[in-house]
Amino acid sequence: MTTIGFIGLGNMGGPMTTNLLKAGYEIKAFDIVPELLEKSVAEGATACNSAAEAAVDVDVLISMLPASLHVEGLYLGDDGILGNIDPKTLVVDCSTIAPGSARKVSEAADEKGISMLDAPVSGGVGGAVAGTLTFIVGGAALALERARPLLEIMGKNIFHAGNTGAGQVAKICNNMLLSVLMTGTAESLQLGVDNGLDPAVLSEIMKKSSGGNWALETYNPYPGVMSGVPSANEYEGGFLVDLMIKDLGLAMESALDTGASTPMGSLARNLYISHGKDGYGRKDFSSIQRVFTRVTAKK
Amino acid sequence: MTTIGFIGLGNMGGPMTTNLLKAGYEIKAFDIVPELLEKSVAEGATACNSAAEAAVDVDVLISMLPASLHVEGLYLGDDGILGNIDPKTLVVDCSTIAPGSARKVSEAADEKGISMLDAPVSGGVGGAVAGTLTFIVGGAALALERARPLLEIMGKNIFHAGNTGAGQVAKICNNMLLSVLMTGTAESLQLGVDNGLDPAVLSEIMKKSSGGNWALETYNPYPGVMSGVPSANEYEGGFLVDLMIKDLGLAMESALDTGASTPMGSLARNLYISHGKDGYGRKDFSSIQRVFTRVTAKK
Amino acid sequence: MTTIGFIGLGNMGGPMTTNLLKAGYEIKAFDIVPELLEKSVAEGATACNSAAEAAVDVDVLISMLPASLHVEGLYLGDDGILGNIDPKTLVVDCSTIAPGSARKVSEAADEKGISMLDAPVSGGVGGAVAGTLTFIVGGAALALERARPLLEIMGKNIFHAGNTGAGQVAKICNNMLLSVLMTGTAESLQLGVDNGLDPAVLSEIMKKSSGGNWALETYNPYPGVMSGVPSANEYEGGFLVDLMIKDLGLAMESALDTGASTPMGSLARNLYISHGKDGYGRKDFSSIQRVFTRVTAKK
Amino acid sequence: MTTIGFIGLGNMGGPMTTNLLKAGYEIKAFDIVPELLEKSVAEGATACNSAAEAAVDVDVLISMLPASLHVEGLYLGDDGILGNIDPKTLVVDCSTIAPGSARKVSEAADEKGISMLDAPVSGGVGGAVAGTLTFIVGGAALALERARPLLEIMGKNIFHAGNTGAGQVAKICNNMLLSVLMTGTAESLQLGVDNGLDPAVLSEIMKKSSGGNWALETYNPYPGVMSGVPSANEYEGGFLVDLMIKDLGLAMESALDTGASTPMGSLARNLYISHGKDGYGRKDFSSIQRVFTRVTAKK
Repeated sequence: MTTIGFIGLGNMGGPMTTNLLKAGYEIKAFDIVPELLEKSVAEGATACNSAAEAAVDVDVLISMLPASLHVEGLYLGDDGILGNIDPKTLVVDCSTIAPGSARKVSEAADEKGISMLDAPVSGGVGGAVAGTLTFIVGGAALALERARPLLEIMGKNIFHAGNTGAGQVAKICNNMLLSVLMTGTAESLQLGVDNGLDPAVLSEIMKKSSGGNWALETYNPYPGVMSGVPSANEYEGGFLVDLMIKDLGLAMESALDTGASTPMGSLARNLYISHGKDGYGRKDFSSIQRVFTRVTAKK
Repeated sequence: MTTIGFIGLGNMGGPMTTNLLKAGYEIKAFDIVPELLEKSVAEGATACNSAAEAAVDVDVLISMLPASLHVEGLYLGDDGILGNIDPKTLVVDCSTIAPGSARKVSEAADEKGISMLDAPVSGGVGGAVAGTLTFIVGGAALALERARPLLEIMGKNIFHAGNTGAGQVAKICNNMLLSVLMTGTAESLQLGVDNGLDPAVLSEIMKKSSGGNWALETYNPYPGVMSGVPSANEYEGGFLVDLMIKDLGLAMESALDTGASTPMGSLARNLYISHGKDGYGRKDFSSIQRVFTRVTAKK
Repeated sequence: MTTIGFIGLGNMGGPMTTNLLKAGYEIKAFDIVPELLEKSVAEGATACNSAAEAAVDVDVLISMLPASLHVEGLYLGDDGILGNIDPKTLVVDCSTIAPGSARKVSEAADEKGISMLDAPVSGGVGGAVAGTLTFIVGGAALALERARPLLEIMGKNIFHAGNTGAGQVAKICNNMLLSVLMTGTAESLQLGVDNGLDPAVLSEIMKKSSGGNWALETYNPYPGVMSGVPSANEYEGGFLVDLMIKDLGLAMESALDTGASTPMGSLARNLYISHGKDGYGRKDFSSIQRVFTRVTAKK
Repeated sequence: MTTIGFIGLGNMGGPMTTNLLKAGYEIKAFDIVPELLEKSVAEGATACNSAAEAAVDVDVLISMLPASLHVEGLYLGDDGILGNIDPKTLVVDCSTIAPGSARKVSEAADEKGISMLDAPVSGGVGGAVAGTLTFIVGGAALALERARPLLEIMGKNIFHAGNTGAGQVAKICNNMLLSVLMTGTAESLQLGVDNGLDPAVLSEIMKKSSGGNWALETYNPYPGVMSGVPSANEYEGGFLVDLMIKDLGLAMESALDTGASTPMGSLARNLYISHGKDGYGRKDFSSIQRVFTRVTAKK
């Protein structure tokens, strides 16, 4: 049976390990927060005292960390765990980080003969709990085949985006486009409402016309149109504005690196930052609707 | 049998009458261009010498004209044909015009006891020929039921957007959102390509993820990803940049009237205008991809 | 001595008449608000019972009204006062309105042999009181020469922008550019502050470099950098966000009419509208700084 | 007499050394391009075989390199010249680079007891030749006083922006604002022209009104309004679009680092990138006017 090392047991990593444990895998777990580690141990994981300990004597090592900084810190440098990892171990980093960072770490792994995949996810905490995440994977096709059985326990859709770093690039492009769809949908709905239309009727029409998109179909930002989505619940939960801002930052970084022009994505990012500064950082990203709707007098 | 008056036999009105004639309706036709009128007559329509003549002794009067100016000129004023129309005749204007113009004409009709619908279409010349247009209708529900049998011959989807003018508002909102989807999709694809991804692979991933939208699914702007779309044919045909600019102008007008904020739609409009000035006015609107891709040296 | 008819005695028109009265001119005044009329009478004006009455037996007729609607309503139509005006009377409209409206009214005047100028002002209430307004004038050079002595009492700078309507166009272009300067200055200052700079030092450097502009030089939006400006006083007074939004609306209307691309002006307009919806409509337009600075948590 | 080491003898560094040599300073020069080094030697400089050689036995070391990469490569790492520099030598880096890079290098210098200034310039090649550059300096006030006599030979204005890195931040903020001024001025002028105004008359009015800014006053982008500027010469010379794109990239990087919102600067950057891709990279940045003016049909 495959033994898995798992580093990072937070909002995402926690439920991902839960699903792997339920499927019968043995897990060597580590997190710098003792409470998170204890929780995984209570569910059957073996506690490790360090990341390095979780990285040895395992068939697959999975990491799920907040940002480029943490991933580079974990794997690289004199204290980096790449030095400890057996070349037979497959490394899968599920963090969402800059493509450049992903490439840097993967290349360092490669120099030591270690196979590594960048496999950022989408689907949020809900998807992690339900085991329905989407994995967007960069790296060698063979390595992906080795990882696939595990990914299929944690997720529903698994895409191969290309070589090393391509998983990060594809996720970033997708989320930039998502920010554009959501903002565009929100302002279009408000333009209709301001001109006398019922937002539910307008949503229905655009959904079936050339304005159709993921936001309209599954995540309508206008309160009252759809139930079971953040707009029905004061924009609580879902995909936080702060996280969208993080992903848009990664997109802008990639655009800077390659000299790409991204006028719509840049504008969406700036609108989201102002929205975050206005106090919406911990609300769902569909709350961008409020920027267009708001009419109450504040100072 | 229903007799139809039809005013405006151009790229759209021409094939629309063809379909009505094929379905066995009697048509009294008029266009200021003799060649267009002759073509309809050859297909079985009865020629009229004036718009006013086409508007009398008919059960339904349909108009399909280029802009607000023409529609107001046709129906209103001392020479306007509203004065000639029998209150039993149902009037259906299929032109895409400003919601304010649509309301003005409909209210004038109402004062004379005439029922009128604003019923702008989408689907382009191809849809008009194939009889698969989408009608987005504003006006009374009962009037729409009277028009429905005719609309179903010319189109496939018929939406009731609300009261008078609502058809125009819904179409404008949809097309503004479409311009945002298309531009956002184009720049996201290019960002991926600039970072080493295959546009076809990236399209496939985003289509099934939260970036999914009408442009990705049916009208991919990146050359080589999809066949049978304008991007596969040097952006010939399809929905012209000039027409998108016209619709975005109507959206901006509505935004001005109501004080709505439409940052993404405004930006898309400005990008499309510059693109048009750059010589792309008569190309398909998915050619906005070129703004992001272009690398050839010009001066 | 020149006798002046003056229609519109509000925030701007009131102090303008005060200055003309002080200079010894005889004024036939009208406003639909009795209190405003009484105030002018107390300062020496003769009260009229209607706009029409103020328009007869005068050498120059001046109007100062809020919007296109009011100006067209005053001069045009069956009840319009153009029918009452003696061709020897020079008409000067100081309202800020759409160039198209200005042209429409001027052409109607011209048909009756009446000379008319569009002469929108800048300088705000402060400039109206101090007699230091800027007049941007469209119309015949000779007509401007006739008006000049009066304009010089109410203002300091008088520009001849071109033919009929050109005064409005120039004012609109200027104010659109102003909105761009102010927003760009605000975000540049914040970028500096966020990166550790003192906003006063940065302002001083940019003022003397290629970033120099009217906002930096005379109207710094960053609190604490300059005294005697709205940013030093919680953005009270000055040029209201609501008025900037009105002028940007006129700019967008002109851009729509001519198919002009105005990406920066459009973005500024959308940012100002969101800012207004956020409760800043009655604050000075330099308060756009808050959009970039704001860090307090709201929901 | 002060001896100066000078590394980087290109378009900017070349004429800067010329002016220092004319003023009688002794210069130890280095460039990787032999031709550039020979040119300086012909003017009186002493040739060095390496950057390291130019960095020893000098009172002041000046570097003028293209980008962060080169500056970090020159000073840092095992081969970096910081290890060779005498702590009594003052180091002045005149390159325009990321503030983060500037801080990194300065901190490394500080650890070795070496004083370092970041002193990016504006004024272009013309200013370098004429000795009228503007220096925007970050670092200790005392170090700036030591450098001042040299800076005054090469430039006219010397600003102290703050601590280490502040020179870069201030330059970046200024140039971002400049891109906004220029683009806003260009689109405002075109809006006026499209509505019938003379661009020279409109420029004159806005210059004296609240639209006044550096671009209008000294660098009008509309052909025919001003002589002796790039717009009078097919946009040849001046400050290249490619260089503006580089500086805007640095601004965006700083905005990403600090989470700043820069909607106008981001939009200007994206417009400049598209403009560059359209073949204008080697033209002056005021050629952005063409984006708004262009009417010729291309495909």
